[in-house]
Amino acid sequence: MEEQKTELINQPIKSVKPVVTSIDTASIIPMGGVGDVTRNMYLYEYHDEILIVDCGIGFADQSMPGVDLMIPDVSYLKSTNKKIVGMILTHGHEDHIGATPFVLPELPEFPIYGSSLTIEFVREKLKEYGVQRNINPVNLDETVSLGSFKISFARVTHSIVDATNLFIQTPAGNFYHGSDFKFDWTPADGKLTELSKITRFGDQGILCTLEDSLGSERPGYTPSEHKILESFEEEFARARGKIFMSTYSSNISRLNQAIEVAVRMRKKFCFMGRSLLKTKEVGLGLGYMKFPGHMEIKPHEIKKFKPSEVVIMLAGSQAQEFSALVRVAYDQDRDIKIQKGDTVIFSADPIPGNEVNINALVDTISKRGARVRYTGITHDFHVSGHGSQEDIKLMIALTRPKLLMPIGGTYKQMVAYRDIAKTMGYQDRDVVLGENGQEIIFSKEGFRFGKRIKIENVYLDAVSGEPVESYVIVDRKKISKEGIVTIIAEIDSQTGQLIATPDVLTRGFTYEGINEFAKRLQQTVAKKLGTRKEKVQNWAYIKSIVGKTAEEMFFREKREPLVVPVVLEV
Amino acid sequence: MEEQKTELINQPIKSVKPVVTSIDTASIIPMGGVGDVTRNMYLYEYHDEILIVDCGIGFADQSMPGVDLMIPDVSYLKSTNKKIVGMILTHGHEDHIGATPFVLPELPEFPIYGSSLTIEFVREKLKEYGVQRNINPVNLDETVSLGSFKISFARVTHSIVDATNLFIQTPAGNFYHGSDFKFDWTPADGKLTELSKITRFGDQGILCTLEDSLGSERPGYTPSEHKILESFEEEFARARGKIFMSTYSSNISRLNQAIEVAVRMRKKFCFMGRSLLKTKEVGLGLGYMKFPGHMEIKPHEIKKFKPSEVVIMLAGSQAQEFSALVRVAYDQDRDIKIQKGDTVIFSADPIPGNEVNINALVDTISKRGARVRYTGITHDFHVSGHGSQEDIKLMIALTRPKLLMPIGGTYKQMVAYRDIAKTMGYQDRDVVLGENGQEIIFSKEGFRFGKRIKIENVYLDAVSGEPVESYVIVDRKKISKEGIVTIIAEIDSQTGQLIATPDVLTRGFTYEGINEFAKRLQQTVAKKLGTRKEKVQNWAYIKSIVGKTAEEMFFREKREPLVVPVVLEV
Repeated sequence: MEEQKTELINQPIKSVKPVVTSIDTASIIPMGGVGDVTRNMYLYEYHDEILIVDCGIGFADQSMPGVDLMIPDVSYLKSTNKKIVGMILTHGHEDHIGATPFVLPELPEFPIYGSSLTIEFVREKLKEYGVQRNINPVNLDETVSLGSFKISFARVTHSIVDATNLFIQTPAGNFYHGSDFKFDWTPADGKLTELSKITRFGDQGILCTLEDSLGSERPGYTPSEHKILESFEEEFARARGKIFMSTYSSNISRLNQAIEVAVRMRKKFCFMGRSLLKTKEVGLGLGYMKFPGHMEIKPHEIKKFKPSEVVIMLAGSQAQEFSALVRVAYDQDRDIKIQKGDTVIFSADPIPGNEVNINALVDTISKRGARVRYTGITHDFHVSGHGSQEDIKLMIALTRPKLLMPIGGTYKQMVAYRDIAKTMGYQDRDVVLGENGQEIIFSKEGFRFGKRIKIENVYLDAVSGEPVESYVIVDRKKISKEGIVTIIAEIDSQTGQLIATPDVLTRGFTYEGINEFAKRLQQTVAKKLGTRKEKVQNWAYIKSIVGKTAEEMFFREKREPLVVPVVLEV
Repeated sequence: MEEQKTELINQPIKSVKPVVTSIDTASIIPMGGVGDVTRNMYLYEYHDEILIVDCGIGFADQSMPGVDLMIPDVSYLKSTNKKIVGMILTHGHEDHIGATPFVLPELPEFPIYGSSLTIEFVREKLKEYGVQRNINPVNLDETVSLGSFKISFARVTHSIVDATNLFIQTPAGNFYHGSDFKFDWTPADGKLTELSKITRFGDQGILCTLEDSLGSERPGYTPSEHKILESFEEEFARARGKIFMSTYSSNISRLNQAIEVAVRMRKKFCFMGRSLLKTKEVGLGLGYMKFPGHMEIKPHEIKKFKPSEVVIMLAGSQAQEFSALVRVAYDQDRDIKIQKGDTVIFSADPIPGNEVNINALVDTISKRGARVRYTGITHDFHVSGHGSQEDIKLMIALTRPKLLMPIGGTYKQMVAYRDIAKTMGYQDRDVVLGENGQEIIFSKEGFRFGKRIKIENVYLDAVSGEPVESYVIVDRKKISKEGIVTIIAEIDSQTGQLIATPDVLTRGFTYEGINEFAKRLQQTVAKKLGTRKEKVQNWAYIKSIVGKTAEEMFFREKREPLVVPVVLEV
């Protein structure tokens, strides 16, 4: 029995039927965020109740051309007979709240809780997409009851203020939901991680700690946000021209630190970029941002000041298309120019997949003669918001759970997390390596894998907010690699024969002998259609003959464009 | 006068007319390799003579869908009246020699020189593409005369054996061509950089040192290749399963080190992947690779041995599609499987742009239960072949030139290089920040910018070796972002009017109301075509009306697919 359990644990990918047991159980089903970093959503199930934790978007990479976002697949939640008792949002980052405007309209009403900033960001989102929903921030010292679940909050330090971890109690056992965090003893807002709360959660006995594993490859502790303040001080003091600073738009602390140094050095500052302006509005509203109003200027007022008198905070640290920094760098902004003597600070590390675009952006800015501070030459202007190996160990020490489950990381990071846990005495079988859609059933005895939910990639176009079907992505990928060939064949409906050489149209595809190809295609298709001369019954058949023949002919020449046959009845 | 020159130097981008001067001049025109890392080709011009240095390919990135390679644009060389006196290849890396099979057939005959391995690699390439050309290795201690140019070689350490730097003498002044190098005092082949030669070049007076600037963002010295040997020793000794090791295929030293450790530990080894097998063949032929033949096995023989007895060296460290490592990792190889207990070593850093694919590959391998050594968790298995900031300074100290010109780096790296030079007393105006296609005219007095050659991106499909036109890339990019819509409109040739609702075909594009769209399109086009009923004279006009109308209709709904209008005459 023990043997068998170990076996299961070592094969976390395999789905197994739940063993009938008299012991009470609770389940976790990650819908996103396990094996990938973004699109976080976790379902906690107890009997016929479901608690949702987080509702984030995923970011598209180069394998998804023309796609902006991915959202969690909520087909299971829409079709289940179980009752959704509520949703808790751990913090205000896009990959934890960004899918709310798309997902909530699909689901029945239920209470939604989160910290002040988190809820405020969600409100803004829902407003933007015209989604009506009454949501309110929770007092982080209160315990919320949702069905059989009792949820308590611990404030944690992260790269956004008002971030929380959760202590989730169920009759079958308690969980610590260790969403994104690091241990920062000198955070910019002065609000420390609530260690005493976390240890008290631990005192009550934790079955499984789910923990942010993104930093598990990095040794040591993650440095404090405070380090950035010192870097700003040094760099702002040396600057003789304008200062541009770009970071993640939701990072209020980072913005506050830049503002603090700017004000102290009597530099005016301004904000550029829609997302940054929204952050400013929300930050001021909640009192998380405070600055003397007369020090802020509008972008068009910059020219009234000496270059050395202004700091421009702008969105676009990931070189996002149409972002403020990209517009300014490529000289597409009427008012603001990057000039010789200016300083441009990238206060953010590249997210994997953005390197090529960011490198090109840094090159372009360098050509304008500006001094650029970027990850390639300095690590002074960014610290991660995620804990490193020692932070991870400290969280394990605080929560002292029976089991561990790395979340928010890729598979290799989950493996690195398991290696860390093993240095603290945990065994392979104590660490749950989950997978999105794979139910994990917990009992006081341990865990086993349960049902497996089919999860599709749900793509979204950010402009329209409309879904992009996955077959569209497949087509785009194929066309972008090999091009597209449309073949227009006119068929005599009385004889079923080709009337003339088909028209062959290509895009994203070159072929020297395309006319000759069309003629050969005509002959081959004619041969395949046979000599019968009768009224066409099955147009789909003729269409497939034309398409397949062309594909075969191309394939023999090592070419695989997307072939679109069009048959016209004449 | 002096003032004006400084001005020119500070604006390296701007093209200026050469000032008439009685002083003798020599020019350099980078055709690739300045402001980008790959596709290296430099023209040295003296009066009506041209010397070509290097002839490399560029690697396509995600902005060039479906493209494998880029080659230098040699239109200028094909149309010039000047005489190409010869070509020197500095070392055997693809980005320095890879374009030879495509470029040489376009140009007249001239002598080609390089070190033994370099020439051997080029021979293999020319053979593969069926290009006839007689080329021979040069004795590195000899000085080669090509027209008015005298070229001497200095052996340098780099991530490929037989790498050289060049001392190029012209009547107008001497140049040091510091192609890719680092200073490694314990290289795997024991052949040190020829410092005494380089200092002697310096003694003769150098007008400009062109220097590898890829590592200019990195402080310190680049570590020695020897470090990898120690890492292999440690990792091979701890492995209980099979060992997979992947590096750049041309890195003979790295392969030799893995083989050395394998043999010492009595492990059999094998090679997988076409490029690796070719390197082995060339390496053995030149005596640069030596190993006891009985220790090498073929991939299908692996199953005869215990897992702990084999080391598999395979291509694919950049997660290249169809590479041996990718095939094995995704379980597409019949003989070789990655299993629990195996070790997979990535002995190469990710090239920017490959991160996403490499991360996915590491994840996949991790899921198979193998121990993976990759850049994210250890820097023990790769050292750069390029010098860091201190290596760069040492080269400047050895050559002591009047002027400096960073090459082989992006613009930001060129700027970082200039910052290094300034710490050694050089001024901004002493450092030439060039651009591909921009002639730089050198005289004993200094430099100025000369003519500007238009350089196009020349894309190549690696399978067919055929060019891919740039408009094809533009189409592919557009389609991959927004999809393609083909509109087939049947027009009555007698009346010039639409006969029916156009057929609208979409790929990579979704649109709910496409049928309704087609009807609106019909109406709008009909309106634009007017009510005249006459024989069609201008089919292109009708086609453009159809296409533009559809584009406008989509654009109003924030959609921009590639629209292909097809007009059929009925």
